[in-house]
Amino acid sequence: MAKTVDAKHIISITVENKPGVLARISGLFSSRGFNIDSLAVGETEEPTLSRMTIVVKGDEATLEQIRKQLGKIIDVVKVQDFSGLDFVERDLALLKVNAPAAKRGEILQIVEVFRGKIVDVGQRHLMIELSGPEAKIEAMIALMQPYGIKEVARTGRIAMVRGVK
Amino acid sequence: MAKTVDAKHIISITVENKPGVLARISGLFSSRGFNIDSLAVGETEEPTLSRMTIVVKGDEATLEQIRKQLGKIIDVVKVQDFSGLDFVERDLALLKVNAPAAKRGEILQIVEVFRGKIVDVGQRHLMIELSGPEAKIEAMIALMQPYGIKEVARTGRIAMVRGVK
Repeated sequence: MAKTVDAKHIISITVENKPGVLARISGLFSSRGFNIDSLAVGETEEPTLSRMTIVVKGDEATLEQIRKQLGKIIDVVKVQDFSGLDFVERDLALLKVNAPAAKRGEILQIVEVFRGKIVDVGQRHLMIELSGPEAKIEAMIALMQPYGIKEVARTGRIAMVRGVK
Repeated sequence: MAKTVDAKHIISITVENKPGVLARISGLFSSRGFNIDSLAVGETEEPTLSRMTIVVKGDEATLEQIRKQLGKIIDVVKVQDFSGLDFVERDLALLKVNAPAAKRGEILQIVEVFRGKIVDVGQRHLMIELSGPEAKIEAMIALMQPYGIKEVARTGRIAMVRGVK
């Protein structure tokens, strides 16, 4: 059988906000050798529910198994795979960049083009906040590389289907 | 012994980007009954490393134990507790809000004040992207409540210490 190419999948899992749920779900992925590319867990419109957004690379057959296993976990309320849907995806990054006075102007220009925000400034550094699609954040990081990136923190992606049902 | 009040802690854990690490760490928290308030896992300045930012509520003694246990996991490279430090913390949210034409103007005004972005618009809804500190996002959600929030996705928080070493 021809091996299918592993595609990136964004899966959103709505779960009851209880200890152990996260460990169980991440265990489900790792026991099948899936490495989670990015994971975001945040609150939802319901205070008792959390929403996990997971980005994984894998073949369709194994992912189908994982979706079935997820459906069996009692604290899992809803599973949504964004494959084939029209959706918005966003990531958030904080970047600490070397920025001596002589380079600050150049860096600020790039940040402005990307509509990023400066959240901290010192004699030799700037901290930048940037949200957007994966590609935008990667492009900003690549442009900051020559100045020297001291630190990066990223949230991992969240996603939401466009339109209303 | 007097019971100490449970405080919120933001902990950043830099880990090797391998399957199973996330499951192990989330298991460590849940086995001690800690519920993770928010969790963000994203890439860092090093391609082989991921950074997990965890917000947990708990007493100091148990957290100290967890920090020690984390230090024993071979794939954990660095553990940083932001308690007492001067840091920037940010969260990202996508909100889908009911927005019939008659209400759209009001909603757009609020979004502008918060410096949010409109990322999708339809005849009866708007999708809003907002990044900022926890309190800002909570305030925006509270203001959108009367219009009817259809969906919320949040990344969980990331944090970074101000200044440079």
